[in-house]
Amino acid sequence: MRKRSLPLSRVYRLLEPGPVVLVTTARGSTANIMAMSWHTMMEFEPPLVGCVISNRNHSFGMLRAAGECAINIPTAALAAKVVACGNTSGRRVDKFKAFGLTPVPAARIAAPLVGECYANLECKVVDSRMAAKYNFFVLRVIKAWVDPGVKNPRTIHHRGRGAFMVAGRTIQLPSKMK
Amino acid sequence: MRKRSLPLSRVYRLLEPGPVVLVTTARGSTANIMAMSWHTMMEFEPPLVGCVISNRNHSFGMLRAAGECAINIPTAALAAKVVACGNTSGRRVDKFKAFGLTPVPAARIAAPLVGECYANLECKVVDSRMAAKYNFFVLRVIKAWVDPGVKNPRTIHHRGRGAFMVAGRTIQLPSKMK
Repeated sequence: MRKRSLPLSRVYRLLEPGPVVLVTTARGSTANIMAMSWHTMMEFEPPLVGCVISNRNHSFGMLRAAGECAINIPTAALAAKVVACGNTSGRRVDKFKAFGLTPVPAARIAAPLVGECYANLECKVVDSRMAAKYNFFVLRVIKAWVDPGVKNPRTIHHRGRGAFMVAGRTIQLPSKMK
Repeated sequence: MRKRSLPLSRVYRLLEPGPVVLVTTARGSTANIMAMSWHTMMEFEPPLVGCVISNRNHSFGMLRAAGECAINIPTAALAAKVVACGNTSGRRVDKFKAFGLTPVPAARIAAPLVGECYANLECKVVDSRMAAKYNFFVLRVIKAWVDPGVKNPRTIHHRGRGAFMVAGRTIQLPSKMK
């Protein structure tokens, strides 16, 4: 793949704007994909990501068993496939095959990356203490990939009921904030 | 204020796209404002929001003491003031006065709302068990306000180092997802 390794200290720049992401998990020879909007950065470096993966989702059990997953960030070009992933269950459908998405081997985890996404984050579960009550997991990003050709990614941001805000222009303001 | 009460079941639609927000807290007669991007929905209804408020921020102690805060959602028109809030500390500056923001009394909490923001969420802290390790708080939204005139809010989304993505157009896809 044409992606380059991204320094872990820059991962927050991919997730802070709040894009819908595709979470991939694996168990044996099967892999699954789910759409997710409920995530937040929790630490810059090592990058920690908190996310909610409902126990009604097939991915919940797979994440619990494997302890690892990938966060894949799509752009608007993939919006229809993202919705398709969100509207089906991995219990019944091989989403990679059904929606024409390409599983790409990860460097450090068993779950495949989604080749069509412009960025991919390989993650390990590091804290599950809030999984029982809130379905909330803390992930540590251990390897990050990004397509260096995508400078202003047209990420999609869920507004509910099939409405998505597409990332607009970027403005620059004088700021001391990281 | 011209805002209307928003059903709590719709709060997720405001926060899922990942906007930068202004968190307001109060202690006695003083109030503070901080800029925040590290938040996620955790439950639809009652709406739960998880967020990271660093213990290096003045707001951390105020939130700990009061157990309540407001999440105020600005649009691009307020971007310069949002950055100003992020670049100063409430230990030294009354940010409402310094940046010309209007404190508006909330209905159910002591912290003021930011009048210029198009939406305001009144929140109570309901779980602090991850505050010591991750500065992570679970908030319950108990009252929500939104300006009914703002249909496609130009929220801002932090990309790091003073760069902000401004919300672009909204697309509609056939989806069964909530």
